[in-house]
Amino acid sequence: MSRKNILYAQSGGVTPVINASAAGVIEAARARPDQIGQVLAGHNGILGVLREELIDTAQLTSADLHALAQTPGGLFGSCRYKLKGLDENRREYERLIEVFRAHDIGVFLYNGGNDSADTALKVSQMAKLMGVPVQCIAVPKTIDNDLEGTDNSPGFGSVAKYVAVSILEASLDVQSMASTSTKVFILEVMGRHAGWIAAAGGLVKRRDGDPPHLILFPEVAFDEQRFLAAVRQAVETYGYCSIVVSEGVRNADGKFLSDSGSTDAFGHAQLGGVAPVIAGLVKDRLGYKHHWAVSDYLQRSARHLASQTDLEHALAVGRTAVELALDGHSGILAGIERESDQPYRWRVRPVPLDQVANHEKKMPDDFITEDGFGITEACRRYLVPLIRGEAYPDYGTDGLPDYLRCGLELVPPQLAEFDVEQGDALPR
Amino acid sequence: MSRKNILYAQSGGVTPVINASAAGVIEAARARPDQIGQVLAGHNGILGVLREELIDTAQLTSADLHALAQTPGGLFGSCRYKLKGLDENRREYERLIEVFRAHDIGVFLYNGGNDSADTALKVSQMAKLMGVPVQCIAVPKTIDNDLEGTDNSPGFGSVAKYVAVSILEASLDVQSMASTSTKVFILEVMGRHAGWIAAAGGLVKRRDGDPPHLILFPEVAFDEQRFLAAVRQAVETYGYCSIVVSEGVRNADGKFLSDSGSTDAFGHAQLGGVAPVIAGLVKDRLGYKHHWAVSDYLQRSARHLASQTDLEHALAVGRTAVELALDGHSGILAGIERESDQPYRWRVRPVPLDQVANHEKKMPDDFITEDGFGITEACRRYLVPLIRGEAYPDYGTDGLPDYLRCGLELVPPQLAEFDVEQGDALPR
Repeated sequence: MSRKNILYAQSGGVTPVINASAAGVIEAARARPDQIGQVLAGHNGILGVLREELIDTAQLTSADLHALAQTPGGLFGSCRYKLKGLDENRREYERLIEVFRAHDIGVFLYNGGNDSADTALKVSQMAKLMGVPVQCIAVPKTIDNDLEGTDNSPGFGSVAKYVAVSILEASLDVQSMASTSTKVFILEVMGRHAGWIAAAGGLVKRRDGDPPHLILFPEVAFDEQRFLAAVRQAVETYGYCSIVVSEGVRNADGKFLSDSGSTDAFGHAQLGGVAPVIAGLVKDRLGYKHHWAVSDYLQRSARHLASQTDLEHALAVGRTAVELALDGHSGILAGIERESDQPYRWRVRPVPLDQVANHEKKMPDDFITEDGFGITEACRRYLVPLIRGEAYPDYGTDGLPDYLRCGLELVPPQLAEFDVEQGDALPR
Repeated sequence: MSRKNILYAQSGGVTPVINASAAGVIEAARARPDQIGQVLAGHNGILGVLREELIDTAQLTSADLHALAQTPGGLFGSCRYKLKGLDENRREYERLIEVFRAHDIGVFLYNGGNDSADTALKVSQMAKLMGVPVQCIAVPKTIDNDLEGTDNSPGFGSVAKYVAVSILEASLDVQSMASTSTKVFILEVMGRHAGWIAAAGGLVKRRDGDPPHLILFPEVAFDEQRFLAAVRQAVETYGYCSIVVSEGVRNADGKFLSDSGSTDAFGHAQLGGVAPVIAGLVKDRLGYKHHWAVSDYLQRSARHLASQTDLEHALAVGRTAVELALDGHSGILAGIERESDQPYRWRVRPVPLDQVANHEKKMPDDFITEDGFGITEACRRYLVPLIRGEAYPDYGTDGLPDYLRCGLELVPPQLAEFDVEQGDALPR
């Protein structure tokens, strides 16, 4: 039996643990030298594959791999680039297959979210059509946790932990200041379409009066009067009000609050930032002194506070994807299946990609409390295992994490250049 | 010799480690049961002293003290309340002394920044004037690091570590996305008058091309053209640009950029947030896709990422303040003295408060590079020891830190009520 080469690529927004999945792939492959040859990685994701800009991961030492599993961001580079449909741009798919052929790729592992699952599915179909034996496997990743076919998406658990710890810490701060100063604190978190990340803040609330006092979900239309009444009640009852707001919160007309037409001093439209909008409202209508934070990329790169569970998931989906390939699987997602909540038990198993692609996993209705401002026990049961355990990176004597920061060389190309814009090969 | 009672109070903005100083005070006092009686704490700082709202710390168990040293915020409550001058409001000082007398207080420990050092000095003068034997000692604390008489202020080291780790992590994220998406990332940090916190971001830069590519200091007037040229150069050379901006950045007229008249959709003045102002500028003039984060309270409550050095400082100033009191000191700050950079050696020693109060420690000129966008080797030598070591809190099985969250009972009052607004005693 001839050895398979693997091509691995990272896709879409990165996470604190996507590199751990990469390390899982590479380690599993190195453990099977009889069955697996090279592990190549696309430079900047699928764009690097189209452009035949490939990185031979053999240049990473064992120490590098150890550091890789601890490093946030995407070491090989990622991209936001969705392949068009097979009919619209068949040439792109053909090009992928040509690159696979040129580098003798037997396994394509695509590490991403919904779009990547869709791409992996189409590539697997195209390969079959062209009679090229490439196994395509999607490796789950997305902090948004909206991917079907997997109990949760690696990356989400660590972001959830960051958000929960951050709102706990900031709430303790506000509580100590509230007698003479800040009474309302607002933390903006990611999640444009679903409230999974905002929901994680709710884990801090153990009993009545605990923060956060309000969570604003994308799933619940923002009602200014109800919101202001709830803020006032929290301040009058507990002395302060701690709020987690999802960037995706919309008003009753379905318009993002963050797109509500702010302009800055230069007269530019001010993009992003629902927290300052909410803060302005609180100040104007209630007169409370407030502070607000927008964690933005900090939340999705905070490897220093990764969840141990999440890290284990990320490593496992990478490793298992390799094993599933060796078992002959293709057109599947290496999905996480939850076997029990308590004790938390899970395994990775193959899920057909046509059950995954183009679906979006929403928060179940029974995860949000009736008043629309908190999470239910069912939500808590789901979330708690995902933030459990602390997976700290190693630190140097300079007080900073020993993250892998290295330049990587590309493999010499075999094919003509490819212009991604034009969808055609260029003379080299 | 009769036993002394201690009155401890927290002042101003809290830090990730101010509670560690409190724990240091209480532990040191408990170790001297022959010399020290009660340790009382002001509820919400000096206001609680004026109002005779005092907490007997005897209600904290040893386990509570262990947790206290790991808990951000100020457990006893803090306040922003500056006592007026002795001539302007002598009645307030007299009231403090009355409360000291009523509770047999021999030692007043005030844990704060510049204003608190000033208050401690005035109270010690007033006590002498009134013939009341109260020793007044200031315990240093401020994330702004602008306190004189101490090499650094406990709280600053942990905030510095948070800022450095955060910009490192977010930069790795942006770097992986830059080929098709975000090219400029902006992190706003605290420091209204001095760039100490922003400077900490510079620790991440080891060599040319490393992030952050630009730091915007309050000490350097913002020059739009120079800034935009530098952003463009970074993006063209390294593919992305990572920026740390201090909330205190001003234009050439001395006006805060963050106060530059933004309004939101509700027509409110939008307060705070220099990051979105900078982001709008980058987008409008250069057209780069950007992201921005405002860490706000997250940075100063991030006990989950505390610096071990900073924690040791915080504990030591608390403990040593008690010892200095037992040695008969008064009118002093328990200041940190740096004995050497490498290996980092330090001790706590008494500094007369009249050398401390009403001074503000600025960043030395030779800590900022000539182009105004980075830190020098001298700055790095100063900062590195302060972020060294990781002092993690304990975590529970729910994946969250075991921070102390408890209600505390007040000691029964002995005196008539005091109306802080009126500066006079009320009938109870």
